[in-house]
Amino acid sequence: MNVSELRLRLSRAGQAHLLQFWDELEEAQQVELYAELQAMNFEELNVFFRKATEGFNQSSQQEKVDARMEPVPREVLGSATRDQDQLQAWESEGLLHISQNRVAVLLLAGGQGTRLGVTYPKGMYDVGLPSHKTLFQLQAERILKLQQLAEKCHGNRCTIPWYIMTSGRTMQSTEEFFAKHRYFGLQKENVIFFQQGMLPAMSFDGKIILEEKSKVSMAPDGNGGLYRALAAWDIVGDMERRGVGSVHVYCVDNILVRVADPRFIGFCVQQGADCGAKVVEKTNPTEPVGVVCRVDGVYQVVEYSEISLATAQRRGPDGRLLFNAGNIANHFFTVPFLRDIVNVHEPQLQHHVAQKKIPYVDSQGQRMEPDKPNGIKMEKFVFDIFQFAKKFVVYEVLREDEFSPLKNADSQNGKDNPTTARHALMSLHHCWVLNAGGHFIDENGCRLPAIPRCTLMDGVSGWELLSTAVLGLAGGWSGCVTEGAVLGVLARAARESPQRASGQVSCPCFVLAIDTAAHGQPEAVTAGVADNLKDASDDPIQCEVSPLTSYAGEGLESLVAHREFHAPLIIDEHGVHELVKNGL
Amino acid sequence: MNVSELRLRLSRAGQAHLLQFWDELEEAQQVELYAELQAMNFEELNVFFRKATEGFNQSSQQEKVDARMEPVPREVLGSATRDQDQLQAWESEGLLHISQNRVAVLLLAGGQGTRLGVTYPKGMYDVGLPSHKTLFQLQAERILKLQQLAEKCHGNRCTIPWYIMTSGRTMQSTEEFFAKHRYFGLQKENVIFFQQGMLPAMSFDGKIILEEKSKVSMAPDGNGGLYRALAAWDIVGDMERRGVGSVHVYCVDNILVRVADPRFIGFCVQQGADCGAKVVEKTNPTEPVGVVCRVDGVYQVVEYSEISLATAQRRGPDGRLLFNAGNIANHFFTVPFLRDIVNVHEPQLQHHVAQKKIPYVDSQGQRMEPDKPNGIKMEKFVFDIFQFAKKFVVYEVLREDEFSPLKNADSQNGKDNPTTARHALMSLHHCWVLNAGGHFIDENGCRLPAIPRCTLMDGVSGWELLSTAVLGLAGGWSGCVTEGAVLGVLARAARESPQRASGQVSCPCFVLAIDTAAHGQPEAVTAGVADNLKDASDDPIQCEVSPLTSYAGEGLESLVAHREFHAPLIIDEHGVHELVKNGL
Repeated sequence: MNVSELRLRLSRAGQAHLLQFWDELEEAQQVELYAELQAMNFEELNVFFRKATEGFNQSSQQEKVDARMEPVPREVLGSATRDQDQLQAWESEGLLHISQNRVAVLLLAGGQGTRLGVTYPKGMYDVGLPSHKTLFQLQAERILKLQQLAEKCHGNRCTIPWYIMTSGRTMQSTEEFFAKHRYFGLQKENVIFFQQGMLPAMSFDGKIILEEKSKVSMAPDGNGGLYRALAAWDIVGDMERRGVGSVHVYCVDNILVRVADPRFIGFCVQQGADCGAKVVEKTNPTEPVGVVCRVDGVYQVVEYSEISLATAQRRGPDGRLLFNAGNIANHFFTVPFLRDIVNVHEPQLQHHVAQKKIPYVDSQGQRMEPDKPNGIKMEKFVFDIFQFAKKFVVYEVLREDEFSPLKNADSQNGKDNPTTARHALMSLHHCWVLNAGGHFIDENGCRLPAIPRCTLMDGVSGWELLSTAVLGLAGGWSGCVTEGAVLGVLARAARESPQRASGQVSCPCFVLAIDTAAHGQPEAVTAGVADNLKDASDDPIQCEVSPLTSYAGEGLESLVAHREFHAPLIIDEHGVHELVKNGL
Repeated sequence: MNVSELRLRLSRAGQAHLLQFWDELEEAQQVELYAELQAMNFEELNVFFRKATEGFNQSSQQEKVDARMEPVPREVLGSATRDQDQLQAWESEGLLHISQNRVAVLLLAGGQGTRLGVTYPKGMYDVGLPSHKTLFQLQAERILKLQQLAEKCHGNRCTIPWYIMTSGRTMQSTEEFFAKHRYFGLQKENVIFFQQGMLPAMSFDGKIILEEKSKVSMAPDGNGGLYRALAAWDIVGDMERRGVGSVHVYCVDNILVRVADPRFIGFCVQQGADCGAKVVEKTNPTEPVGVVCRVDGVYQVVEYSEISLATAQRRGPDGRLLFNAGNIANHFFTVPFLRDIVNVHEPQLQHHVAQKKIPYVDSQGQRMEPDKPNGIKMEKFVFDIFQFAKKFVVYEVLREDEFSPLKNADSQNGKDNPTTARHALMSLHHCWVLNAGGHFIDENGCRLPAIPRCTLMDGVSGWELLSTAVLGLAGGWSGCVTEGAVLGVLARAARESPQRASGQVSCPCFVLAIDTAAHGQPEAVTAGVADNLKDASDDPIQCEVSPLTSYAGEGLESLVAHREFHAPLIIDEHGVHELVKNGL
């Protein structure tokens, strides 16, 4: 280790503080820190910092973006709802390109599931579908199915290469996961992993932040780090060598994502676009989603936090929100466009500044967790390159068909969590089965309406005593009412109404099955959500269709038409399976 | 008691079984049953049953409603989003009518909060707003404010009478609640309670069902029982004597309801309508909401369970759902129209049949809870009378401004519950404050964006050990992780990383504050949701504006413009209050 040379280099770049605890470190820590710092280009970092903070300060002085925004004009918009007569043609066009090996997909999977509450890559998450498939598996199987569909349609065996961008935090576990699952049936050589870069966090005055005495505070450089990584790993070159012309870029967290969606690809190709964005309609002004629009004549995504409520609430003459093209991180790029980005435009793009609370070690070496922002992270965004498109188009799809992101852990009234993702997929597949002519029936053989009815069991008066007492628990009910609490309630109930202390007790919220012992004391208790509430729940009918059977609802008629099913229903490559209902 | 005469009457009506346990009853029970049966008109009930079941069987044979439905034509539609230039005129018209004492409101409040998990009337529910106002209080205060606005606008002191339909189950507690709260500032004589009727449940062969040996299974006759109750309590007469010309009818459970909405009233009056429905746009085909449409040329509400998915998914050329006029039980009627309904049309309306599981006593006197439908309830719906309108109009409003019903108890991923209702109101009031020129700032004095940003605190790597262990609990986390489980996790963590077992531990999901004792065993533990997850939550800024200060967002500029606030913020008749933040 040539520490004095490193010290000099740091000193010249104004980052000498990074070695301030050097003498206190154990040798292994010294080796690690040395390697980390040696790999860094401090001149470049300082340029990044200067440009990013200049841009940040400039933009706050600039005229607010509100006044400069224009909505997407109708002529660049394709719509799954408004252009229904075009869908078939777009799909054919897209399948043709796929069959000619001209389409690739590129997955942004650099993030860990921190908000989801897991420390492994999000794509490895199992949201609890009947099949327990992970996000990665669902996407892999959709690619497989699409290859088959293209072959069936156009007669060529074909390949959709799958580029997967990981980060330092997810590379190894992602590769291991795919290897362990034998690439979910894909060819290993057609699944290409690469890795996005990391950048250090910096204080407001441009000093790189130490997270520990021997460790720089590093973070991935944003999903726009894609373009630098494309260059570093020569991914565009790989695409060119394979003859790929179009790429579908998407985020890992959308359980409904139509990878390489032939309609989207076909629409973009037919329009001669070099860059396109798939969007869903934003219907509520305060929904936290960025919108695709034009600012000063060029396309970009404006984040909800950049505009005023009044702008978000503006509506057109049709009553819709004026800025309603909600970005869902689903993009189309041609390979020549990506080549230009990598060679010409990306290096000129400045980083965005995110002010953050960044844990650090103070000058005494004490680790501190700040309670207000103390530094910045520098990021680029995947949509930063829209501005360079020669022909930009937007394709609008239905949220219930194509978008349900997995971001958070399950929690009361939460959004974008495993439960909402699971429900979105099963609701969609339920619709597929109905539209293919299948029916669902209840335990009495009655056909269930397409849209589930909320019914309460009648005559559930229950014990008012018990229900009131149990209500105190109901606030906290989600599978975790303690046995002790229930026992206490029941003991009191049993004393006061001994004639009903045996058997099953219904009350508005719970079913409590009790076995009595001596003195009317309940001995064993099982508690569950009352039947009447189960009927009234918003849970969809359990129905899952394997991507290997259907990519987007097609091809199910021969399996389900004129048939009646009990949920849960699984349709996969082995056939149609009705699972035996589990209890509570 | 003339039991033999009753027995004869029952026998003639084919209902003799109702006395089958007579001899086993105690005298008090006999008295009660006798009174209940004496009050019933069995001939009428048998006619109801015959007509209702005939209609039910007929309708199943009839051509499906799908083919006969037409959407609401644009010319009968007023829209808060598409007719923004008209809103001011409609509002003035409505306020004029109100100022002339020509407008009443009528509240449908016959239901108990069974699905909500309470045994008292829903209107008495406190959803947990900062003010802890109940639904009844919010509605009362909106009436008060509207009277003031009308007076201010047109110079007349005026009254909006409030008719409240309760049921046998809610009458007494509702009246007591209003008396106890001194009618929330309204004049007692302008709050008029009346009661909807009850009907017995009947078996499929027309026998009235006994719920207990001495008790008939009774249920309210549907919210369409309104019209029979209007007649029975001479409510239309009372309206006529007061000179009321228009009535706004609504359900108790919508926390955002604009009672006597002057825009809606003004629109209907200006259109010369005798009947109108306020709707919100249905945007998802599988949303369980009835839609207003025309069937065979007359207006009605078609329930989602009556149509096929294909019909629900139909879209117009503008990409919107074809049947998108979602019924929110918010109706306008003229008093002459109600007079006609009561005198002429209502008696001809047949009941709807709902097949239900109805608890009953079997021939041995044993109480049974059936697991499949064993009988019917007969109901009318409040919208059954749309067909009689000479001029029917529809008024479309924004869901986020006006509709958030309270139906269910809080539960994971639930809809229409206390949390969603509370959030809907606070989000709306937050928008009011922003649009009036106010701003919210965080604890560092930075302005919060209009649409809250989801940020994660950075560098929360935590102990992987701890986070993984705690994750097992996270599934069940909603305030109910047991202390034992946390202690177990911590004990292990303390053993393995003793240097950090004191103080506060952050991990992706939890903050655990620990006091250590001997041997690194944690002694006291408090657990809470980690700050980073709190930041990322969808909870709106806490902001509540009293209806006494603003009916629909008006009049706030002088209170909030150019001012900066910390949440929670309450604005009421006493001024603007920033509450001290509570801890976790």
